[in-house]
Amino acid sequence: MSGVFTEASMSLDGYIAGPGESGFDLLFRWYGNGDVVRPTAQPDRTFRTSAASARHLRTLDDTGALVVGRRLFDLTDGWGGMHPIGRPVVVVTHHVPDGWPRQGRWFTFVTDGVESAVAQARELAGDRWVGVNGGSISRQCLDLGLLDEIRVNLVPVLLGGGVPFFDRLAKAPVELTGPTVIEGDEVTHLYYRVRQP
Amino acid sequence: MSGVFTEASMSLDGYIAGPGESGFDLLFRWYGNGDVVRPTAQPDRTFRTSAASARHLRTLDDTGALVVGRRLFDLTDGWGGMHPIGRPVVVVTHHVPDGWPRQGRWFTFVTDGVESAVAQARELAGDRWVGVNGGSISRQCLDLGLLDEIRVNLVPVLLGGGVPFFDRLAKAPVELTGPTVIEGDEVTHLYYRVRQP
Repeated sequence: MSGVFTEASMSLDGYIAGPGESGFDLLFRWYGNGDVVRPTAQPDRTFRTSAASARHLRTLDDTGALVVGRRLFDLTDGWGGMHPIGRPVVVVTHHVPDGWPRQGRWFTFVTDGVESAVAQARELAGDRWVGVNGGSISRQCLDLGLLDEIRVNLVPVLLGGGVPFFDRLAKAPVELTGPTVIEGDEVTHLYYRVRQP
Repeated sequence: MSGVFTEASMSLDGYIAGPGESGFDLLFRWYGNGDVVRPTAQPDRTFRTSAASARHLRTLDDTGALVVGRRLFDLTDGWGGMHPIGRPVVVVTHHVPDGWPRQGRWFTFVTDGVESAVAQARELAGDRWVGVNGGSISRQCLDLGLLDEIRVNLVPVLLGGGVPFFDRLAKAPVELTGPTVIEGDEVTHLYYRVRQP
């Protein structure tokens, strides 16, 4: 079984970033608080997690392609040329950035919207999952009925403000089923399915 | 071990009520979606939960007294004279409501603030827990360093707006430990400890 999922590390009060882009040290602590080593596609970047969180990270192996917003692409400077999970990335943007081909090996730039981006990512993913990153893109997918699963890495902290994971939903309430729970150290991994109406 | 806890049923996006006081049917569904019968102190009110949620509800037996805000007291019309869990309630208010004694068997009205209310509830609770209800009172307790535990009944729904459980915190981030997890049906019970600085 595959489909489209989104995933984020989120505070108990619902934020994926604290006020003024703060809080990442707390939200991402679980990536480095254990003994199980997981290399990434970037040689200088290695995760060291609890055994439970390593089990969670292994679910990413079943991801065939990613969809991200232009903001995330710019923030990370295109992850230095390849995303850490080593899969092709479809970037939703208004304009193809200078110096990049519209369709490269690791990055495809889509200028006609989220729905088209997800369709192209499905092609690239084959029978594996498409991962959708960033609150705004995830919300648009949810509004369009394109999202099958929401994976939350729930972190034991209250950030008190910042960027909500889900905000300004076009159609609410959105009912979910689950979750499947993986209890990590300083994080609880929760996988919800979106109930399609 | 005892202390001061707060508890609420909360959507995955952090709301304890949806827009315009909506969403309660979804947030409280788990109180009635199972076979395990739990009577309350009110003869006409009975919970029917999953076995897991029944285990969660039994933790309430160790509650000795409650602190609530005046708004909740008014909304429920004083729970018809006694709170469903059958424990004394301390109400934080500016004025003692007409027709009620300042200090009755089931209700005590405190007009000098949250800290005083918690102190009086501790007296009433003896060696049992004090439960603090309502987002605003809970936030004040957290800001004052009076809160030991946060119990969240996390419900698989996105409400998209409404009343956040924790909002406008005076001191953020607030780090927590845990959670202890009880996996119910259509709810995940999560108990967090507040890290005192």
